Amino acid sequence: MRLAIMGAGAVGRSVAELAPEYGHDVVAIADSSGAVVDADGVAVEDALERKADTGTVGSADPDDVLGASYDVLVEATPTTLGDAEPGFGNLAAALERDRHVVLANKGPVAERYDDVMALVADSDGEVRFEATVGAAIPAIATIEGVGPSRVTAVRGVLNGTANFVLTRMAKEGLSYEHVLAEAQDLGVAEADPSFDVEGTDAALKGTIVANVLDGGGHTLGDASVEGITVLPTSALDLAAEDGRTVRLIVEVTRSGVHVAPRLVPEHDTLAVSGTMNIVQFETEHADRLNISGRGAGGPETASAVLADVDRLD
Amino acid sequence: MRLAIMGAGAVGRSVAELAPEYGHDVVAIADSSGAVVDADGVAVEDALERKADTGTVGSADPDDVLGASYDVLVEATPTTLGDAEPGFGNLAAALERDRHVVLANKGPVAERYDDVMALVADSDGEVRFEATVGAAIPAIATIEGVGPSRVTAVRGVLNGTANFVLTRMAKEGLSYEHVLAEAQDLGVAEADPSFDVEGTDAALKGTIVANVLDGGGHTLGDASVEGITVLPTSALDLAAEDGRTVRLIVEVTRSGVHVAPRLVPEHDTLAVSGTMNIVQFETEHADRLNISGRGAGGPETASAVLADVDRLD
Repeated sequence: MRLAIMGAGAVGRSVAELAPEYGHDVVAIADSSGAVVDADGVAVEDALERKADTGTVGSADPDDVLGASYDVLVEATPTTLGDAEPGFGNLAAALERDRHVVLANKGPVAERYDDVMALVADSDGEVRFEATVGAAIPAIATIEGVGPSRVTAVRGVLNGTANFVLTRMAKEGLSYEHVLAEAQDLGVAEADPSFDVEGTDAALKGTIVANVLDGGGHTLGDASVEGITVLPTSALDLAAEDGRTVRLIVEVTRSGVHVAPRLVPEHDTLAVSGTMNIVQFETEHADRLNISGRGAGGPETASAVLADVDRLD
Repeated sequence: MRLAIMGAGAVGRSVAELAPEYGHDVVAIADSSGAVVDADGVAVEDALERKADTGTVGSADPDDVLGASYDVLVEATPTTLGDAEPGFGNLAAALERDRHVVLANKGPVAERYDDVMALVADSDGEVRFEATVGAAIPAIATIEGVGPSRVTAVRGVLNGTANFVLTRMAKEGLSYEHVLAEAQDLGVAEADPSFDVEGTDAALKGTIVANVLDGGGHTLGDASVEGITVLPTSALDLAAEDGRTVRLIVEVTRSGVHVAPRLVPEHDTLAVSGTMNIVQFETEHADRLNISGRGAGGPETASAVLADVDRLD
């Protein structure tokens, strides 16, 4: 397949680097200020070196990528809330040309799922988005395998930054502020960590799962969301005395999406450590399935994107 | 799809009962002594009642099922070693008629994988076998998603009976013989438990995984297999003093299939309890993925069979 990649952050770069191993060609890649398009295949290494040197992958207009001769648009620009732009517009442009879209960007399927599916209905292109929920964890494929109507609930730990902070607070007895600063030093938390620690990122993933289970109808605004920013170390100490710990749990049921810190037994299946993620599927005929793995990271997310490319007809 | 089901044990019965919910029709079902074939759809409830009353689902010849008008043959007869008959012959008959086959029977893909794939190459029918490894755990689909060449190793606990025995021995300090008798009373272990406790069943699953990773070339005879029958309670006690426990671990690497009791940390990801199964995938670009769930049971296995039916073109 010929891939056009919108976004040259950690995920876009990893997709570009791994594509040849999966048998695909990169014919275009764009960052926010420039692009390179080459129908014979972009020289990926050169483009990424140029980005490191000059700040952009190339001198073409990013919008030229949308008009290139590709089979699949990989949308890996940053997730935005509300109108989910520019990701949504990029997706729409590809579907209007009957091209497939694989999303790493959560925005379009968390905020505008019904709009996305309306465009899909009028297009020969498909949209896949395995990478948006738990990166390397095959959450969407598992729901598709079981059948959405036979998954009765999904629970999970879906934000590695928040989980790292909670794990360290509980283990070392340190304050939220202290551990957050440490996570920022390690590059586990961003300079503005609000998306992660306030539960927004986990809620976006829960909303995407809810849309898959119900065939649409959910946006971030419908989710109840509570983060970990006001959690005192003393709460974790009290939990530990009782053999329990606290995790930021996303819960998706037929009554909606709920994100909040929850008490779980210390060695519970959901009590993954550090930046690990886990998704637990409650099914009608096969009891519980639990899948844990790396919920973030360039190559981890890119491998989910490229698995989606392989699933396209 | 029109399903013909060979085998009316726990799995065959569950497939027959759940098929309508998945949108499929059962047009034939056979046990070892009889069968019922009806192009308009078998009355499943009646057939299973007949089996309960008379010992067989119907008065037709089981071989008539192979000649029925079906799209998919569900092969759910008991796993046999060596020539994998009658499962292999049933599979061959379906492929020769260009029909699809979904296996719950491990024999054909553990003992004669290369023969199966030679038949597939000459047929318009496909063979799928998700249910053979860990029942409800989507092990094969996950390897397909990651790409077999990018899975560097697979480890797991893949026999619920052996794991139940080990878990109870460690927790209660009871002897192997005592816990095995208890497991037989509970129906967790069979009257002849050798297949489970000697590691054969786990090795069959490991061999199937090895065949998927390497595209064939493996049979049960190539695996190194050690069971749990000679494990003294004292070994578990010693492990516990050190914060560890023992699990019957299947390991599949490029150097082959190994099944043996192994020491693992008490709260390790692989240290699942009771009849739970777990599969751990070591991948090239996405670190480790762990999937735990129900590795046996009628509805659990049937749900994997029916997921395979949905994956057929």
